[in-house]
Amino acid sequence: MQYHVDGDLVAREEATVHVEDRGFRYGDAAFETCRAYGGEVFAWERHRRRLANTCETLGMPDAVPADLAVRVAETLDANDLADAYVRVSVTRGVQPGKLTPREAVDSTVVIQVKPLPRGGVDSDPVWDGHATVQTVKTRRTPSAAVPADAKTHNYLNGIMARLELRRVTNEGYQPDEALLRDIDGNLQEGTTSNIFFIDDGTLKTPATGELLPGITREHVLELAADESFPVETGTYSVDDLREADEAFLTNTTWELRPIDEVDGLQVGSGPVTNLLRRLYDQRVETRCY
Amino acid sequence: MQYHVDGDLVAREEATVHVEDRGFRYGDAAFETCRAYGGEVFAWERHRRRLANTCETLGMPDAVPADLAVRVAETLDANDLADAYVRVSVTRGVQPGKLTPREAVDSTVVIQVKPLPRGGVDSDPVWDGHATVQTVKTRRTPSAAVPADAKTHNYLNGIMARLELRRVTNEGYQPDEALLRDIDGNLQEGTTSNIFFIDDGTLKTPATGELLPGITREHVLELAADESFPVETGTYSVDDLREADEAFLTNTTWELRPIDEVDGLQVGSGPVTNLLRRLYDQRVETRCY
Repeated sequence: MQYHVDGDLVAREEATVHVEDRGFRYGDAAFETCRAYGGEVFAWERHRRRLANTCETLGMPDAVPADLAVRVAETLDANDLADAYVRVSVTRGVQPGKLTPREAVDSTVVIQVKPLPRGGVDSDPVWDGHATVQTVKTRRTPSAAVPADAKTHNYLNGIMARLELRRVTNEGYQPDEALLRDIDGNLQEGTTSNIFFIDDGTLKTPATGELLPGITREHVLELAADESFPVETGTYSVDDLREADEAFLTNTTWELRPIDEVDGLQVGSGPVTNLLRRLYDQRVETRCY
Repeated sequence: MQYHVDGDLVAREEATVHVEDRGFRYGDAAFETCRAYGGEVFAWERHRRRLANTCETLGMPDAVPADLAVRVAETLDANDLADAYVRVSVTRGVQPGKLTPREAVDSTVVIQVKPLPRGGVDSDPVWDGHATVQTVKTRRTPSAAVPADAKTHNYLNGIMARLELRRVTNEGYQPDEALLRDIDGNLQEGTTSNIFFIDDGTLKTPATGELLPGITREHVLELAADESFPVETGTYSVDDLREADEAFLTNTTWELRPIDEVDGLQVGSGPVTNLLRRLYDQRVETRCY
């Protein structure tokens, strides 16, 4: 396997960053998780735009190199990968050991890939089964502390949440995802996924502001609107999710993953989830969006 | 210059971590900034203990190697450094690309050093002048999201705060430190420092819970108590600081740094700050604590 580091393809074993890189020192880096289907990165333009937005938020508006798409393509080619997970990171680079970042940025770009099963129509999902999710005590970092729409290498908030699952896990109960509420107790998102549920014939998902606006989330909202299916974004409680007719998680790798259980209560998949999953597979296949 | 990486001394240029190290991927790492005076790390046991606490909080209680002090000494020796800045990082190491950490941890330990001026009695401080500090809009990440007593590589909260200073800086006004309030608006700490002020003949500092319990902060509280000087820890506003008789910042590198100005208002040093600075220098010199 080869990765792309700072402009060059290198053997995976030699893919390193300097310890003075701010990406290592402070998690001072933006990233995207993308998925390639049949050799092409799905929704690349949306990922590139969000990566640029994150860099803008972090005060390094020019950190994304112009040839990023070429580097990603080179990495897929070098590994002969058509269906793959692609992680693209852009750090603020090596700077002297002061917390205040310099304006001039020589970013470090890291591209990591690994094979994934084929996606699209009639494909198998990457996940093993419907998701068991568990509300945790850890609260979503508020936007007032770190802007929620920035996708960064500061991931300890999600890790603290996942560590709580370690504690509740036993033989019969092994949650796949932790649900994060904000400080006020409103449902926000999973640690690596957005949350949708269907209630009263309406597709509902927490509004943006205090959560990461997922790209799969955006696709799902568009697909529902295309079908004239009622959609609502708003403020919800965990109870709203627990009492829903259907529920699912979204992220780039999982695509749409039905939620089987919330805090031990059955929710499950259903006709709306199944329809949206089919429509998503078609979008992946036809690239019509 | 040589750094210590994963058990070995290496040339600074070759000091790297793998891109799959969770320290790089997620900022999933604990660290300490220490200061060596005359070849010996000051308050080493306190730093080692806090590092172990952070690792415990991050669910990797055995991540700190037993020979850490030896590695630090080796790094200082290899660089022939007696008076130095020492940064010790312990990451969760390389693990497969899943957010949920594995229980078995093979941590990566990185030690970076650089020369500092001599400290102790009759020494010059490392800072250029008294500090100009500025309250920022960015709020301290609440403990409910990431425990405040964990000193980790997730430093974007402080970086967002420092970026705000970039915007307010002009030729005549260049703040050295950003003051973080919590979500409720209470004064908590600087991005890399704790805050003290003297008011009504009492030394005051925000209580722990939503701030990093600094080791220099701890020394200062002890020194004041040893002198039977009235001390109070509590909940304060930025106004309390602005209207104080004297004020100063503390951290390991700066030691005690008087605050000249808060949000454009003069505060300044004074007899209590000067006394505490002298006592701190004595503690450094005599290692009596």
